[in-house]
Amino acid sequence: MSNNATVKQIVIIGGVAGGASAAARLRRLDEHARIILLERGPDVSFANCGLPYHIGGEISDRSMLALQTPQSLNKMLALDVRVRHEALSIQRENKTVTVRNLEQGTMETLSYDTLILSPGASPIRPPLPGLDHPRVLTLRNLQDMDAIIRLGAESKRVLVIGAGFIGLETAEQFHHLGKDVTLVELQPQVLPQLDPEMAAPIELELKAQGINVITGDGIRGIAELASGALKAQLASGASIETDLVILSIGVKPDTALASACGLTLGSRGHIVVNEFQQTNDPSIYAVGDAVETKDGVLEGNISIPLGGPANRQGRLAADHIVYREKARPYPGSIGTSIVRVFSLAAGITGYSEKRLQAMGHPYSQTVVTDFHHANYYPGAVPLSLKVIWNPRDGRILGAQSFGQEGVDKRLDVLATAIRGKLTMEDLEHLELAYAPPFGAAKDPVNLAGFAAKNMEDSLVEITRDIPEIPGLQVVDLRGKPLREANPVPGAIGIMLADLRDNLHLLDKSRPVLTLCMVGKTSYFAARVLQQNGFNVISLQGGLTIHPELAH
Amino acid sequence: MSNNATVKQIVIIGGVAGGASAAARLRRLDEHARIILLERGPDVSFANCGLPYHIGGEISDRSMLALQTPQSLNKMLALDVRVRHEALSIQRENKTVTVRNLEQGTMETLSYDTLILSPGASPIRPPLPGLDHPRVLTLRNLQDMDAIIRLGAESKRVLVIGAGFIGLETAEQFHHLGKDVTLVELQPQVLPQLDPEMAAPIELELKAQGINVITGDGIRGIAELASGALKAQLASGASIETDLVILSIGVKPDTALASACGLTLGSRGHIVVNEFQQTNDPSIYAVGDAVETKDGVLEGNISIPLGGPANRQGRLAADHIVYREKARPYPGSIGTSIVRVFSLAAGITGYSEKRLQAMGHPYSQTVVTDFHHANYYPGAVPLSLKVIWNPRDGRILGAQSFGQEGVDKRLDVLATAIRGKLTMEDLEHLELAYAPPFGAAKDPVNLAGFAAKNMEDSLVEITRDIPEIPGLQVVDLRGKPLREANPVPGAIGIMLADLRDNLHLLDKSRPVLTLCMVGKTSYFAARVLQQNGFNVISLQGGLTIHPELAH
Repeated sequence: MSNNATVKQIVIIGGVAGGASAAARLRRLDEHARIILLERGPDVSFANCGLPYHIGGEISDRSMLALQTPQSLNKMLALDVRVRHEALSIQRENKTVTVRNLEQGTMETLSYDTLILSPGASPIRPPLPGLDHPRVLTLRNLQDMDAIIRLGAESKRVLVIGAGFIGLETAEQFHHLGKDVTLVELQPQVLPQLDPEMAAPIELELKAQGINVITGDGIRGIAELASGALKAQLASGASIETDLVILSIGVKPDTALASACGLTLGSRGHIVVNEFQQTNDPSIYAVGDAVETKDGVLEGNISIPLGGPANRQGRLAADHIVYREKARPYPGSIGTSIVRVFSLAAGITGYSEKRLQAMGHPYSQTVVTDFHHANYYPGAVPLSLKVIWNPRDGRILGAQSFGQEGVDKRLDVLATAIRGKLTMEDLEHLELAYAPPFGAAKDPVNLAGFAAKNMEDSLVEITRDIPEIPGLQVVDLRGKPLREANPVPGAIGIMLADLRDNLHLLDKSRPVLTLCMVGKTSYFAARVLQQNGFNVISLQGGLTIHPELAH
Repeated sequence: MSNNATVKQIVIIGGVAGGASAAARLRRLDEHARIILLERGPDVSFANCGLPYHIGGEISDRSMLALQTPQSLNKMLALDVRVRHEALSIQRENKTVTVRNLEQGTMETLSYDTLILSPGASPIRPPLPGLDHPRVLTLRNLQDMDAIIRLGAESKRVLVIGAGFIGLETAEQFHHLGKDVTLVELQPQVLPQLDPEMAAPIELELKAQGINVITGDGIRGIAELASGALKAQLASGASIETDLVILSIGVKPDTALASACGLTLGSRGHIVVNEFQQTNDPSIYAVGDAVETKDGVLEGNISIPLGGPANRQGRLAADHIVYREKARPYPGSIGTSIVRVFSLAAGITGYSEKRLQAMGHPYSQTVVTDFHHANYYPGAVPLSLKVIWNPRDGRILGAQSFGQEGVDKRLDVLATAIRGKLTMEDLEHLELAYAPPFGAAKDPVNLAGFAAKNMEDSLVEITRDIPEIPGLQVVDLRGKPLREANPVPGAIGIMLADLRDNLHLLDKSRPVLTLCMVGKTSYFAARVLQQNGFNVISLQGGLTIHPELAH
């Protein structure tokens, strides 16, 4: 295929989310461009995020995951799709790509007017003994999934290494299949993207479902035993016998090709692009998991290996190729993500407290818990929401949530609030859809705004643990049945309604800590006590966030 | 109770949403203020929005709706709650309220340092013959609900007049009870708050469930027949026999008291307040359904009789009473609301197209339909989203949505976007929570942003109906089974995948209209045709929004 003076030739390397989106958008903008889509694997445009769900059979039909075939893309979009074609090198000086046909072993040189790189990322597989064993698998594409299903069928025990989003989804699906599942995570918590107190309920849920969860321990090596079983050795000295290992400890960007032709890479090895997804070579764009892009919350760059940003970056690159300066810049990524773990969902948008702490960036935070819709309407279940903001201007920096229902909605509202540069004050008055089946007159999002205001106005001093203060009086405001079932050692039980009549039970010369189930009643009680001359702190989030305090 | 020089006395008239919220917040800010809550009815702080759901038994326990009692408010908040007490007049010059105890018939004069009015609104009952019949009821409080349940039990047929939010909820609940339900609405559509095409699916659902829906017809009078049945006479001449009539044609603010003491009222009779909920008398605040407040979208004032704003206004008034200038101004209401109608939900935030049209305000709009979460994950159902924006700057002015799942989430995202003054461009790159059970890599919210961009870039010319153009060629891009089941008269069926090979079937000298199920494929086809030299328009929203086009 030769270049025609008036028809552009656009070569796209990588045919999944970002590359396929770019190709589709290009075709809609330019019916006559020559668009060649190269994909090393056998599939294009498959549903990456659905892979774990087919393992457990929740998505029963494999063909649902193959969103497009080379043939369908050709029919719908007149694309020249070449699967099992690997780009070996890019010759920027004469704008060509050297490509190997992996089926036939033949080589070809393609010229391009514009090149789009959408190479994605590969699962990390540390160079440890035995991690190359054929029953140590990673999950990235349909072939990985097929292999996991095949070997999973012969396995009674499955070890999942890494308790991030994909690790948790995979562990859950194997549990559905009746496997004996162990989950190992190097960090001291599951879902390391979240702050510890927001991930703790997820860990409890995993354990309650019968998954063997080991945190704060890392893999050191894997050996096959004479029995045929695998033995995973952990850093702690513990070992686990299993039949199958799924490694999901993260991904690294596939940037060898970009690096070899001299494109600028960032400090963590991602391809650096401008706000139109252009690399330092203006004829070469890059999108998706392999790039670092503008941070949508704070200054600097960020790399977010998720499907949503990849799709939209692909689209944007196409816009810039066709429209040039008329295209609109990418506003940056904020990293909104969510996972379902059995009956719970948990997710994050923007920055966690951990990350801000590590950066030394100032922040304030609050955690509220309330029902996901009007408590008087059947089916109301608790939802916890943590919001983090910049105390200098109130701007929201991040949010996390967990619960059975409505977690995605609150994350989406907060993601939109972050994009709109809203402050905690704005959250107070967000006017969200309220009818009893859908919400409440005061949504948890509003409550987070209220809580921030109360903190700013110094209405309440909060604590995130029971501090070791000599003489501290702990007032437990939960109802008697809850207090008796899970007592907090040393606490005095007083109901809020009885508090004003029982101030004599407390010693005004000693500090008081109030606690309850979710942190709201303890705040109410703190206000009563404080205005009656007590020195009082309220436990944020209550026993929902601090279950370890009760026995 | 006399005034004490250091202790403030605050009198609140009206003990439901706004009044109760103000009282609670006041107590938290000032443990020692005297707070007197006057309520004409027998209940305080009840769950207004839950009333319809107890009629049908969905909320089975009536006590769930009585959120607080005078006793519980007294215990929890040390409030002096006086139910069945009616404020008769306000003497602003000496800061007193004259109150009648409706139980005992006694009168009392209360002095106040600050007065908060939360009188609410009353159902409109037009002065038509027979509308005062004891079986013509309205639904506003627990007593109304009890009466409706009592008379409903004896009724086989129920006529609901008014197809707004409460009318629809009430009609649905009576249908659950097995009643023969007729719904009459004066406007030519149900849910008059929405634009016609967004309300049409709700009307279809009501009819599919067996509710007799009559739109574009009004009530003229009601007469009791010799049989004991009621006969409702409609403007059209039609009449309906029924056993019970529920009147839900709207509410009017209860502002007689405010008006009598010279507080400023707006053009539609609401109490005018500043951004701190103060009336023209700085010692008197007003909150909730009876006030008009700043419009949160456009210039001017607005009155939104909903629980969420009432609660937050009550809280804000309390803040201003205690903090004065440290309190933060009310940012205005935008009128987010939602209703469940059998298997569907529908709602709105901000302005409708109708209202903007009536005002002569410039706007653009788009409607997109897609699955509420990843289509490859089980349970995906279609959701339609209409977004309206200002073409001058792209700012979002309003949104509407309907569907089985996820309607509340999209409305909340758009309500947040409106508050953040986001533009359609911002919607493109909103980074919403995506995992297969919760969302998709390209959410309908993103798609609305894409569609707006395509319109702005003149990529596609849309139509909202099949125009009467001589020689118009209509291309139906739906699959053959759908085309054959519900054909569009005169349309040529071509699949998108076959379009490029079948251009010869179309006459380039005549205009083409493309249509499909939701408007996406027809847009894709329009791009192909346009770039091949055809004059083409695409049907917005497809047959989902225009079911009347197919037979």
